[in-house]
Amino acid sequence: MPHINLPQEFPGIRSLFMFRPETAAPLNALVQAMLHNPHPTLSAGERELIATYVSRLNTCKYCCNIHGAIAQHQLGNNAGIVQQVLADPETAPISNKMKALLKIAAKVQSGGKNVLPQDIELARSEGATDIEIHDAVLIAAAFCMYNRYVDGLATWQPDDPALYDKMGEQRAREGYLTLPFKVVINH
Amino acid sequence: MPHINLPQEFPGIRSLFMFRPETAAPLNALVQAMLHNPHPTLSAGERELIATYVSRLNTCKYCCNIHGAIAQHQLGNNAGIVQQVLADPETAPISNKMKALLKIAAKVQSGGKNVLPQDIELARSEGATDIEIHDAVLIAAAFCMYNRYVDGLATWQPDDPALYDKMGEQRAREGYLTLPFKVVINH
Repeated sequence: MPHINLPQEFPGIRSLFMFRPETAAPLNALVQAMLHNPHPTLSAGERELIATYVSRLNTCKYCCNIHGAIAQHQLGNNAGIVQQVLADPETAPISNKMKALLKIAAKVQSGGKNVLPQDIELARSEGATDIEIHDAVLIAAAFCMYNRYVDGLATWQPDDPALYDKMGEQRAREGYLTLPFKVVINH
Repeated sequence: MPHINLPQEFPGIRSLFMFRPETAAPLNALVQAMLHNPHPTLSAGERELIATYVSRLNTCKYCCNIHGAIAQHQLGNNAGIVQQVLADPETAPISNKMKALLKIAAKVQSGGKNVLPQDIELARSEGATDIEIHDAVLIAAAFCMYNRYVDGLATWQPDDPALYDKMGEQRAREGYLTLPFKVVINH
């Protein structure tokens, strides 16, 4: 049961956005800017992979499932990559640059000061740009916020994979700024 | 030295905002909504105290110093409270409700799932509302982002207390949406 009185028709962060629209607007605008808007080099699917991976490290079920579902829809034929990255980024069929960015993201998750010059050098040696390094750090840091927000208020986090798939399809197509659909469910 | 090529005239998160204006806008709008805009019950100074305390727990020098300075300017005659809260919230001259909200903030800092029903019950028994509990959780979660962002890219974080005081005075008065001043300094 959520720690505060949240609208019951929306899961996870959506219930918090309905509860507090004043902060929902910038929180939504941030995720839109980081993950969905056009990017010079990283695809939306690659950016969603970073968000999904960090959410798994923070054991946030809702964020990991929804961003994993969005990533699967963004990656299309390569959707299997999501589960492989969650199992082990090092053996997943992604570029060495993505592996280095995910390594930086994991360092950020454990604490900002844990990112060392050699982590940055590794990413650069695999071709990562300053913008890519910046965005990997910011996405990882931001999901340390979103995950704590969703878990810290004990929001409702459904189990049904079909529900995440449906929400993920909507977000992959529309981005984050459209209204979410309500969920009719007993809980 | 910062991990990426940041403009040298701005410290901490300000250098990141100049580097990446696309994400600066929602990050700035979020901190304005959480900490500066009018609130039904929590003063700006009380909200800045939560931000300062979490930044100290995350050992982020820049964020702790700048939000501590903003809090001091917001709290006016009670400015000494900032250092007392950083030393030990339990013995600081703040309300029992604020102590309970800071306890929740510390739980969020260590991980969202660490917030337990009894932490919420304690805050409620001291008069905390759902909005206050929500905002304490969100502010704490958000500073787990800002702190990681600032430290994860190894931004320049000055030592001079007078500089933080000057920046803090500006932010306490103007909020977060006006342009920052440049800092002329050798570093």
